[in-house]
Amino acid sequence: MTSNSIGIGMIGCGTVGQGVAQILSQQKTLYTRRLGTELALQRILVRDAKRTQQCSKIDPSIVTTNPDEFFTTPNIGIIIEVAGGRGLISQYVRRALSDGKHVVTANKSLLAAEGSELFSLAHENRVSIAFEASCGGGIPIITALQFGLMANKINAMYGILNGTCNYILTEMTQSGKCYSEALSEAQEHGFAEADPTLDVSGQDAAEKLAILSSLAFGIQATSAHVQSEGIDQLNLTDIKFGSELGYDIKLLAIAERNNKSDDHVSLRVHPCFVHTEIPLAQVHGPFNALSVYGHATGQTLYYGRGAGQMPTASAVVSDVINIASGWYPHAFGELKLWSNDHGKNNWVNPDDLPSRFYLRISARDTPGVVAKVGTILGDAGISVSALLQHEVDADKFVPVVITTHSARQGAMNKALAEIGRLEVINGQPVCIRIVDLPHD
Amino acid sequence: MTSNSIGIGMIGCGTVGQGVAQILSQQKTLYTRRLGTELALQRILVRDAKRTQQCSKIDPSIVTTNPDEFFTTPNIGIIIEVAGGRGLISQYVRRALSDGKHVVTANKSLLAAEGSELFSLAHENRVSIAFEASCGGGIPIITALQFGLMANKINAMYGILNGTCNYILTEMTQSGKCYSEALSEAQEHGFAEADPTLDVSGQDAAEKLAILSSLAFGIQATSAHVQSEGIDQLNLTDIKFGSELGYDIKLLAIAERNNKSDDHVSLRVHPCFVHTEIPLAQVHGPFNALSVYGHATGQTLYYGRGAGQMPTASAVVSDVINIASGWYPHAFGELKLWSNDHGKNNWVNPDDLPSRFYLRISARDTPGVVAKVGTILGDAGISVSALLQHEVDADKFVPVVITTHSARQGAMNKALAEIGRLEVINGQPVCIRIVDLPHD
Repeated sequence: MTSNSIGIGMIGCGTVGQGVAQILSQQKTLYTRRLGTELALQRILVRDAKRTQQCSKIDPSIVTTNPDEFFTTPNIGIIIEVAGGRGLISQYVRRALSDGKHVVTANKSLLAAEGSELFSLAHENRVSIAFEASCGGGIPIITALQFGLMANKINAMYGILNGTCNYILTEMTQSGKCYSEALSEAQEHGFAEADPTLDVSGQDAAEKLAILSSLAFGIQATSAHVQSEGIDQLNLTDIKFGSELGYDIKLLAIAERNNKSDDHVSLRVHPCFVHTEIPLAQVHGPFNALSVYGHATGQTLYYGRGAGQMPTASAVVSDVINIASGWYPHAFGELKLWSNDHGKNNWVNPDDLPSRFYLRISARDTPGVVAKVGTILGDAGISVSALLQHEVDADKFVPVVITTHSARQGAMNKALAEIGRLEVINGQPVCIRIVDLPHD
Repeated sequence: MTSNSIGIGMIGCGTVGQGVAQILSQQKTLYTRRLGTELALQRILVRDAKRTQQCSKIDPSIVTTNPDEFFTTPNIGIIIEVAGGRGLISQYVRRALSDGKHVVTANKSLLAAEGSELFSLAHENRVSIAFEASCGGGIPIITALQFGLMANKINAMYGILNGTCNYILTEMTQSGKCYSEALSEAQEHGFAEADPTLDVSGQDAAEKLAILSSLAFGIQATSAHVQSEGIDQLNLTDIKFGSELGYDIKLLAIAERNNKSDDHVSLRVHPCFVHTEIPLAQVHGPFNALSVYGHATGQTLYYGRGAGQMPTASAVVSDVINIASGWYPHAFGELKLWSNDHGKNNWVNPDDLPSRFYLRISARDTPGVVAKVGTILGDAGISVSALLQHEVDADKFVPVVITTHSARQGAMNKALAEIGRLEVINGQPVCIRIVDLPHD
């Protein structure tokens, strides 16, 4: 290390960590020119040193498995955390902050659960936490929310925040594959983990939404505040019917202020139909996008690779440079981001959320069923918008698709329970929300 | 003004200026909470005080037509410039910087021509210039390039940066209107000025591209470095043929590093065909978008309203807050943005630019013409990719459309001149570039 350099420590050295090491060494000249100072990766803390030995990009002499050795390395001002998970990693992050070191993290689970506490700890120790890599990979959406859109009161956000789910849904829609086929393919191409639960359950998107909403709304949201539902129960039949009606299926992460009292917000992640013509419907495969509705800007949308080694490493290293240049710690200290002083959070009652709905019923006796379902919906104050039914052979169950005008979720839940009890239908009705983005 | 407030002066009070005044007063509580300090608009300099008298949002007691009175108002730390134009306005901006005041400007013409000088002057006086509103209206693309993508070496940018042109091209494509009809409609809807020259000539997009390229490539570009061509010569016939071939017409602003020697760059604005399936092709009407290709992130795209009162005012006020909170001046001082030390610019020779091409020829004798044109192209080393010709009545000129594989612009220019001299064709051939965005 020269006297004119900034020391960096890194916790974790998996895919993203190796990408970070690679970018830092490849683009040393560029960064030194931009900063006037050299960035020096001095120490890497790993659980198992053998794994990093296989990576030619990593100098083995800087790798340690000893946390005390890592944390007492002199002249380290910035700690990068790319190990993921909580527990021990949370302790490491807290130790770094308490030692007066800035932290750059890609860890959405940690921030979604403990963000508010960690931010307070950082403020107490006059250091900063940068976390662009925690949401949207290489897309600078955190920077946009923290700084670029600063003059806006954010009214809503709609995001495709999980590339695995979007890849699977794109394959189901465009190639007519069923869920399990599309999942296998995603796994083969490296877009899904061997255990895909965190992604396909909606949990990963919920964690990201909690982080983004905390910033955008000035609230303290955790993933427990996000009502979430995954894509693993989706049926190809419904995707095809949706197409006929002009809709694409997407797993959307949605954060909205209530129309009537805008200090109430709702956070949710669920599969839904969106009009094929809106920009979010054009986001295919492993790509991510976030539409942000500001009171002054209207809609702005951010699109790119939401995961992967180099896009995520790009976000991490951008954060490192922004800390090293000194401005980010200043901004972090001044702006009241994720702070404790916004008062309590007010959540919209999920039963009160308005939505349009898509229903599919497997009917024994079509005219009779339509009449009965229509009556139940009418009694619940839900009006039908369209009805779709194809000719089929007699003596079979016939799929009947109904779309509705906007109705309260609670009213629909009640109607669904009643419809499910009808003897003239087979099984339970399928219900998928139709999301209309604000007009802009 | 309370003791705990930041004084703001504003030069100009047209549409955007009035929007700025409105946002500052409407969202006072939000901004004070975010900043811990109040933003106080204390003085507005205008040419004609009568115009602002008609606006109920503006307190007439703060409006002045006297520059000396304006510049000597005490306690003003930030000057907003939303008057536009150069000459006198440039003098005002220089006076503000020399007086040690930060400047927020939406003035693309000024920055595209004098940005480098103004940045130097700001650095000398230890103040900052913020200019998010100069490109892309309310879309925070300057913030993305300055900070969010900091770890990336930017390899290319492709932008729809002029809403007027995009509105006109969308109308021509979707509603089959000719250029002059679409322009009239844009004027009726307020998307085009009475004199639309600056927009439809490509000049406005060229100015924005000069600013964005200076940031992204670390060069000193002015709009004179941008080869630009407008949309006013476009023919509906070609837009329809393009559609048949799977292309949409867009006015793209393109900044690319040379493949071979990446310290050489090219900057250009021209109408071109792009595949209907790429994200930029989905940008319709008055919307803007910018695709940025970073070495690590790959493509990220930014989309939203590129003009209009409130989106532009949103960008201006975001800049004001970022200055007022103190971090932006810090960042501006530290980072070597638009600085003089990047050495000289190296431009790619326009003749060497590779492109695919669309050609339309009005042929008297189809087989003979195709053979002759094919020979000319072949001799120039340009190979034909597709050929399109519809049946028409005999004895008329027949449009023949040819698309080519990638070729040098210089070779195509030479071929076009030869084709134009053929006696078997009517008039000059139409040539439109086909732009393939990098694979991501």
